[in-house]
Formats: sequence, structure tokens, C-alpha cells
Amino acid sequence: MQDILDAIESQRDASLEELKTYLRIPSVSTDPEFAGEVGRCAEHVAERLRAAGFTAEIHPTARHPVVFAERVEDPALPTVLIYGHYDVQPPDPIDLWETDPFEPTVRDGYVFARGAHDNKGQIFCHLKAVETFHRVRGRLPLNVKFMIEGEEEIGSPSLEGFMRANAERLKADYAVVSDTSMFAEGVPALMYGLRGLSYLEVVLTGPDHDLHSGGYGGSVDNPANVLVRVLATLLDNNGIVTVPGFYDDVLPLEDWERAAFAALPFDEAEYQRSVGAPALSGEKGFSTLERRWGRPTLDINGIYGGYQGPGAKTIIPSRAAAKVSMRLVPRQDPDRINDRVEATIRERLPETVRVEISRHWGSRAVLVDAKSKGVEAARAALEKGFGRAPVLVREGGTIPVVGALQDVLGLDSLLVPFGGHDDRTHSPNERMPLECIHRGIQTAGHLLNELLKK
Amino acid sequence: MQDILDAIESQRDASLEELKTYLRIPSVSTDPEFAGEVGRCAEHVAERLRAAGFTAEIHPTARHPVVFAERVEDPALPTVLIYGHYDVQPPDPIDLWETDPFEPTVRDGYVFARGAHDNKGQIFCHLKAVETFHRVRGRLPLNVKFMIEGEEEIGSPSLEGFMRANAERLKADYAVVSDTSMFAEGVPALMYGLRGLSYLEVVLTGPDHDLHSGGYGGSVDNPANVLVRVLATLLDNNGIVTVPGFYDDVLPLEDWERAAFAALPFDEAEYQRSVGAPALSGEKGFSTLERRWGRPTLDINGIYGGYQGPGAKTIIPSRAAAKVSMRLVPRQDPDRINDRVEATIRERLPETVRVEISRHWGSRAVLVDAKSKGVEAARAALEKGFGRAPVLVREGGTIPVVGALQDVLGLDSLLVPFGGHDDRTHSPNERMPLECIHRGIQTAGHLLNELLKK
Repeated sequence: MQDILDAIESQRDASLEELKTYLRIPSVSTDPEFAGEVGRCAEHVAERLRAAGFTAEIHPTARHPVVFAERVEDPALPTVLIYGHYDVQPPDPIDLWETDPFEPTVRDGYVFARGAHDNKGQIFCHLKAVETFHRVRGRLPLNVKFMIEGEEEIGSPSLEGFMRANAERLKADYAVVSDTSMFAEGVPALMYGLRGLSYLEVVLTGPDHDLHSGGYGGSVDNPANVLVRVLATLLDNNGIVTVPGFYDDVLPLEDWERAAFAALPFDEAEYQRSVGAPALSGEKGFSTLERRWGRPTLDINGIYGGYQGPGAKTIIPSRAAAKVSMRLVPRQDPDRINDRVEATIRERLPETVRVEISRHWGSRAVLVDAKSKGVEAARAALEKGFGRAPVLVREGGTIPVVGALQDVLGLDSLLVPFGGHDDRTHSPNERMPLECIHRGIQTAGHLLNELLKK
Repeated sequence: MQDILDAIESQRDASLEELKTYLRIPSVSTDPEFAGEVGRCAEHVAERLRAAGFTAEIHPTARHPVVFAERVEDPALPTVLIYGHYDVQPPDPIDLWETDPFEPTVRDGYVFARGAHDNKGQIFCHLKAVETFHRVRGRLPLNVKFMIEGEEEIGSPSLEGFMRANAERLKADYAVVSDTSMFAEGVPALMYGLRGLSYLEVVLTGPDHDLHSGGYGGSVDNPANVLVRVLATLLDNNGIVTVPGFYDDVLPLEDWERAAFAALPFDEAEYQRSVGAPALSGEKGFSTLERRWGRPTLDINGIYGGYQGPGAKTIIPSRAAAKVSMRLVPRQDPDRINDRVEATIRERLPETVRVEISRHWGSRAVLVDAKSKGVEAARAALEKGFGRAPVLVREGGTIPVVGALQDVLGLDSLLVPFGGHDDRTHSPNERMPLECIHRGIQTAGHLLNELLKK
């Protein structure tokens, strides 16, 4: 591998300039105004892949295209499918950025830009690794396919359909997803679990218009009063969700996992400082990491109704509503959880209000085999690339493609992050350490090599 | 009075145009953005009064000015003090208005605009009545003073101070307040009781920025979750407020009142239809009218926190807040109720959030002598103006000045409504029947005449 590592080293500055070109494209998927830029970004990715000797195709969807590319060295060799996304979150609130989100800027050892970490910086490491093999050796260690979508930041609405329609061409022996973060500064990580997500919006309507709370108060039920009463019954004071059956299918954390989490270099005080809350809290009987990675939750993501302006307005609002989501752990079925929460809310509502409940999301949690050959290869690659053995952890977020890779292609994903643990993804001043970009490219190279050995 | 009534009749169209000019001024007192318009509205009112032969002064306060005007015909004649307010509620939610809230529109026999009923339309009737006497006879039947404030919709914070500072000039034999509603279509009313109001805003802060609910959910308390839990403890499922001591000082309804309310021509089914709610409800053991007029309440007037846009956003919001008000009945002290509710909320909050509680309002409930000479005169005026004897009732709303008139000037107010019973005050599409405007002007004229006779 020394030829490849040397080439990566000698290309260090050039690689950064190439990444910057990629980061300059404002591929914001949620905002129709940027649709042209999203398309331009897909072209950019396809071009890079073609330059690395891949056949690359741009597949249109209802909204933003999927880039699919492959390079088959030898059908007898194993094949790896690398997933990524080229779209980014909106840069808002834009006034909190210290430099232009779409004019990448280097300072203090980081490159700052929207997408620097999520996911352009990370997928770039894979693109640069295959390109280096192509340039130095004229071939890759094994067969490689890329599936890089443009709708991850809007919930990947087209991806599963694309995968089902192209299942044969996507076939692979390994799947790699680099869309999570390192565990701590200098501590690489390998994820074997992700939480799932169910998401409901509850809209209550009482009177058909706002009423004067003096003239009517006491005789007409207030949908905001009803909303807080019913939502409060979904939770107790110990962080436990009190929806009947909510924990029925929960796969408990195993003893080895709890021991492994407890052994991690996790600084609880520093975590609380980074969050800025007066105290940490959560479900009794579990540690902070167990709560984040291995236990389900119910969170009100938004609540609204009545007057929100300055000062006082004395009304019984006509409507009150809440967005409520549940993070799920393995074996919990997202549709069944949505059903249970919805049924509980309906059951507990009085007849004084009308209710509408809509569903925004349903993705199951995933666990992958932590002892597979692929995981061994990823461990070895991370250790070589980052100079330290990775910790084996779960992650509290949800990556819909990981469930789809299991369901459609029967593939466990290797979740191999290159990005820093504190890179402000989705926030102003998103960044990625230059060190992580460099080591990420090397790790991506090692990974192809290690997978070949298995 | 025929000369006056004829003149009012012949001015019918002109009066409507004058009212529209008044309604076009967006004098929203609670929103600092509208402060200039509130001041402009005070000028408009003072100008009208000067045109009717009054000396009119604009008295600045800490926020919005009080218009004071007087016309003394003869110190030997009785004096009536007419109170009103020229400020209005915010128009929100603006998208539910069928026409611009500040571009008055006539349809189906109503004029639609913010303030059409509350209180511009009603105080306009008094302004037009005195102006008609001035124009037709060159004099008024008795001495008249006006006190028209610009802070009623924010709880009249400056009015009592103004009254104490100007008690001598405000001296009068009668006080008139037209800031309530008729009892039903075609049924005029005279009020002898009003509820009071306490009002708090509760702002909870958890983490110091919004957090990704996947990465952090379960380990950091969610201020929206906490808010619904704590607010839910203030109420039970039977319409009873569960703040300790809340009912301690409540003056119970007397038997004659409960009998009188039961005898009123009140159509519960029609009331429900006008409200547009799936069911009526309230405190067990009380009728709808008893609940509205004689029992205290707790209502969430506004609630907000986290993401409110379309679709899903997966955050633990940094903040969540609610505006909560209590309608009070005689003997309940508004400051003590605010204290009790605030203490209850603070006591029941966990240490995982920071709390800020501010107070927007505190006004006591009032009862006035229902058998005075002034009430007799008001009864006669309403019967002449509306063609039917008024019913004697209470009202569920709060008019802070009525308590202050008792406390500072020793005056019981004559609560003489001109506005329709269902005019959507404080709501979108506020309106006032054209018929009520016309009869209101006539009634205001009769009232001056009837008070002279006493």
C-alpha cells in the first residue's frame, strides 16, 4: 500500500483544492430554488468518477437524481458498494456563519463550509481513494460501485424505490456508509447500530375560530389545554414513555454492550457543557451513552397554537398542534409504534376537540453483525488510517439507507466515519478537520485493500 | 329627542364612513412595531372630540397615551364620564381573515375589521352621539367627559396611575363603559359583574441550542416535553384548576343569580353552533352561563417551541413557552393568583430546565349595584334605542377600568353594550352589525337624556 499512501501524501494540497470545488456547489436539496445546483452537483460527482475509470450514470427521480457508478475489475473479485449523498442542509441561519457557507475557508486546521463533513467531505475521501488507485496502479483492488444520492437531507424519499428497481446492478458483497462521526478527538469509531424513527403530527381543533377567553372561557374546551393534558400522559417524570406496549419489542442492551459503553473515553461533564443544559437526564437505570444509543425516546420536536407574539392576547385558540417523534431501537417496528402512539392519543382525547394525525416518517433501527469479516476489515483500515484502533459503538441517529440496504440487498453496512466528532453538522460553521480528510482518504484506501484480504 | 334621532338617521351612511376611517388605523397596542399607529389613533380620537366642541388633551404614559376630553355645559348639571379604548388586539392569525383586518369591509349587514366591535365601534357610538347634539342643538343635555385609553388590550397598565393623578378632573356622577356585548341577537343587556384576569408567560430553556434529536435524544431533557408535563398538572379532566388554593377566595354565585341566569333566553345549541366546537364543556356542577360569568378558569392562550414549519425536523428544541391566563371572579386577588400559579409551576419543574416567568396582566373582578338610578336610566335608554328591555347579566370578560373607577373615583360603572353578541372580538373576521352601530348611536343619545332626568 506504500505506493498509494505516498501518492495520497503528495496530493494533499491538491486534494483539498478538489474538495473545495465540490463544496462550492450549493446543493441544498430541500429548497426548490437550488434545484439547478443540486443537478450540477450530481454532474460534478459523475465526472469525478468517470475520471477515475468508472462508468457513471445519473438516474433522475421525482426530485433529485441518484449517481450510480461502477468499475468491475474482475467478476471473480469481491464487490463493495459505497453509499453517500451529495446534497446538503440549508445554510440557515446564515448570519451565524463566520465565512460564506459556500466559499470553503481553511483556518485552525479545519475547512469550513456547508457539507464539509456531512456528507461531501466524507464521500470525497472514498472518491479520492479510488482515483488514487486508478492513477497509481491503473486498477482497483476489487470491484467498486457507488450509489450517491441527492435527497438524504429530505429523508431519501426516492432511494428505496431506486434500489428495488436496480437491485441486480447494486448487488455487492459489502456496503460502506461514511455518514457518522468519530467518537472523540483522535478516537476513530465503527458503528454497529443505529436508532430508527417514527414521527407524527397531531393537530387539535376545538372551536372553529379563536374565541375571547373572557366571554367564552370555562364553557368551551381549549385545544391547547387538551393538547398538554394528552401529551403529558405519554411521558412520566422518570424519562419513561407511558404509551402502552411501547417497550414490548425493545431489544435490551446486552451485558457486553453496557460494559463496552462504560469503558469508552466519554467525559460526561464535557458533554453537558457542549449541550449547554442545566443538567443531563433521562430514563432511570441507564447511562448517558445507553440512553442515546440503546433506548427509545419520545420527543416533542415542535409545539404551536394560539398567540406567540410579544405581550398578551386573551384567546381560546381554535387549534393547537405538536410534532412528536420517537427514536426506536432494534425490533421496534416504526409503523406499529406510530400506530400505538396514535391510538393512545386518540383514546385519551376528550370529545370536545377534533383531531387530525399525520405521519412524517417511519424508519426502523438497525444492528449489524459486529463480528463479520467486513467489520474486521474496517477495524483494520481505521487503525491503519487513524493510528488507533476504533471503538465499537452505536449511534443515536437514523440513516434510512442502512435499513434499505438490509431489506433490499441483504447487506449489513459498514459504518465507517472519517469526520470529526464535533463538526457542527446541520449547524452554522460546519467544518471538517484537515487531518481527518487526509487520514480519511488513506483509510478509504486501506479499506479496499483490507476487504480484498477477507 | 326627535331632532337628534332624525339627525342620526340622516347621517347613517356618513357615520359608517367615519367609523371606517377610525378602523383603518392599526392601533395594535401589544406590538411595539405599531406604536406610531397607536399614537396616530389617539390624535384621531382627540380631533373628533374637538370637532364636537370638547377640549381634548392627549396625555402621554409610559407606553400609549390617554385621550381626556370634557365639555362642561353648566356646573350645576350632572356629569357623565364615558370610558373607552382606541387600541385593538393583534389581527393574528392574519391568513384566516376574509378581508384585510385594517380595510373595513361591509357585507351581509356587518362591517368587518379589527376593532369593529372591540372597542372602536362601540366608543364611536358615544362620539357620534355627542357630535350630533353639538351639531343639532349646539349643546349637550349634561356635562360629558371622555377618558379613552390606548392600553386596554395590554391590561391598562397606565390607566389607574393616570386616574389617581387626575382624580379631580375626572370627577363625575355617572360612569359609562360600552365594552361588552348584547346578550343575543336583538336582546340588549346591562351588566352588573365582570370577571378579572391574571396572566403569566412561562419560558423554559433546556440546552442552549437546538439539538439533533437522534444524537442527543434520551440524554437531555426536552423543554417542550417538560412544558406539557408541568402545564398538565394545573388542570384536571373535569374543568377544575388544580393549583393549590385557587378557589379559596371565590365568591359563590347567589341563588337569585343562578335562577336569573337559568331564566334567560339562552339557546345552548345555538351557542355551540356559533362557537363551532364539537361539544361544550366545563366545570362540573355549573351551567354554561354560570361557567362563563361566575366561575374562574385557566386557559393556555398561546404555546410555542421548536419546529413549526411543514414536514418534519428532528430536534430537541432549546426553548418552549406558554402564555397562560386565569379569569377570576369577585374576591380573588389577581396578584395572589399569579403568585400561586407561578409558585406551583416553579415547584413542579425539574432541574433540567431554566425557567423565566413574566406577568402580563392582573385585574380584579367587579360587581356593581344593580339597582342604582344610573342603571334605571341605562335600562330606559337601551329599551328606547333597541326596542326591547335589556336583560340584567354578568359578563365573562375583564375591563380593568371598572375596578379602577370604583377604587379611585368611587363610581359604579354602567355597562351598556351596543355590539352584537357574536362579533368575533379578538378573532379573525371581527365585525359589528350595521344595525347595532345605528341603534348604538341612538342609545348613546338617549342615555345622556335619561341620565339628565334622574
